[in-house]
Amino acid sequence: MGRVTTRVPRVRVDLAQGTRVARADTVAVEEPLEIRVAGEPVVTTMRTPGADFDLALGHLLTEGLLPQSSGVAAMMHCTDEDASGAPTFNVVEVTLAPGAGPLTAARRRSETMTSACGVCGSETIADTLTRVPHDLAGDPVRLDPQLLIALPEALREHQGAFDRTGGVHAAGIFSSGGEALVVREDVGRHNAVDKAIGALSRTQELPLKGRILVVSARASFEIIQKAAVAGIPVVVAVGAPTSLAVALATELGMTLVAFTRSPTCSVYAGEARLIPGRPEDPAATVR
Amino acid sequence: MGRVTTRVPRVRVDLAQGTRVARADTVAVEEPLEIRVAGEPVVTTMRTPGADFDLALGHLLTEGLLPQSSGVAAMMHCTDEDASGAPTFNVVEVTLAPGAGPLTAARRRSETMTSACGVCGSETIADTLTRVPHDLAGDPVRLDPQLLIALPEALREHQGAFDRTGGVHAAGIFSSGGEALVVREDVGRHNAVDKAIGALSRTQELPLKGRILVVSARASFEIIQKAAVAGIPVVVAVGAPTSLAVALATELGMTLVAFTRSPTCSVYAGEARLIPGRPEDPAATVR
Repeated sequence: MGRVTTRVPRVRVDLAQGTRVARADTVAVEEPLEIRVAGEPVVTTMRTPGADFDLALGHLLTEGLLPQSSGVAAMMHCTDEDASGAPTFNVVEVTLAPGAGPLTAARRRSETMTSACGVCGSETIADTLTRVPHDLAGDPVRLDPQLLIALPEALREHQGAFDRTGGVHAAGIFSSGGEALVVREDVGRHNAVDKAIGALSRTQELPLKGRILVVSARASFEIIQKAAVAGIPVVVAVGAPTSLAVALATELGMTLVAFTRSPTCSVYAGEARLIPGRPEDPAATVR
Repeated sequence: MGRVTTRVPRVRVDLAQGTRVARADTVAVEEPLEIRVAGEPVVTTMRTPGADFDLALGHLLTEGLLPQSSGVAAMMHCTDEDASGAPTFNVVEVTLAPGAGPLTAARRRSETMTSACGVCGSETIADTLTRVPHDLAGDPVRLDPQLLIALPEALREHQGAFDRTGGVHAAGIFSSGGEALVVREDVGRHNAVDKAIGALSRTQELPLKGRILVVSARASFEIIQKAAVAGIPVVVAVGAPTSLAVALATELGMTLVAFTRSPTCSVYAGEARLIPGRPEDPAATVR
């Protein structure tokens, strides 16, 4: 339980050296986690153990199944056992607060959406818009490009498991001043985002105004959607964005920065939040 | 429809040059695809349009919902329309062959699995084993390390969309002689694998004996599971493996090679399939 990495045997082949060497390697742990609410299974996700409560809470929030973390009264690991009788700690049972109610309405909506006719990007965006109660476009946060571009390196400094395995994603939530508020790692990109949002929402109710979500991976539709539902107005990705991520961020008034590798980045939406270059630098305003 | 990439506006910030330049960029298209069987929605996945029939067929096969491609009588795009009245081509309707029967048994099994007590890696593996009817351990394919290590580069040569966007994954199926039989790209790693397996299974029934699946990304549990259900005995990944991927490959008798970057790679399972180094090279047998 809670093991982020583990050792496995492997044989390293090096053609340049003409060698095959058997030597154990460190890999990221992947195990299923089932999230239950009031005894009912909501989802099973393949995740890296650790921060399971953050993951469970973050998933319920970012999927729109729960509006606020205050709706959760308690979370506990079920002490299920595997075939050998050892506890697995792979089930999190969520107890809702009185009045937080069953999640069925939100769940039913997401199910009917998938069976609607005319499924397409613009309708997917329209559906997401109904699930984002926050005014992202109105978030007044301003961004210093120097600071933005440095965020992936700041994230990397917190990525202990990546250094050991090369195989996990990270997500961090930063203040607009560049302070890392929380960083979480997981074999799944979406899980890393859920863990980070879940962790921060324990001490701060949604929306996470003025915050910046930094992801070590690409920016897909789902990442933008999760940030939006959490009320985060800025997403910074190391990798590429997808077409639907750009379209959703634009529609929401979110700032989306991708290919963020010092000294460059690309701003795909919400560029108006970037603080202009110094007036004395004529190159800063080339368009 | 069928657009793999699209152009979007963006502003490229370069701190070294002190410039901000507005210039369109090419990004990977991401759109939802709904797969229906006999009118019933099976799944909605965010994918890159194109090769939708390969994706639909591959998904049904690798998720164990359909044992053979011969069970499909026809596939067609529904001509659903978006809000503007344009066809979306985002729904694939699958008609099963007479006798191929409804998919409910397999679907019910996968649903009950997620609500079982004691969810853990070893039970997840045990469940997968029941869904792999092929004798992967008995596949006699032998692998030349020189050839194995070159496969990611061969895959890369077929990655047209990656070159333009930097944002799509690729999966290819190769012969043991290193011939690329099929390569497919997608914003989702799992979709790329489903597309490649679906494409090849149209001309070759499962199991795909003696074949090699090459993925541009990491090797997670789900990738190994999909390869196994398709009967592919060898997976070569550019990135890292997860703990559960290593455990499943080992259990199945599959060969799993990861961190494959010439001139080195690491073999995490099934090393016995690798052809030994030449006897005259003493370094080749160092353990």
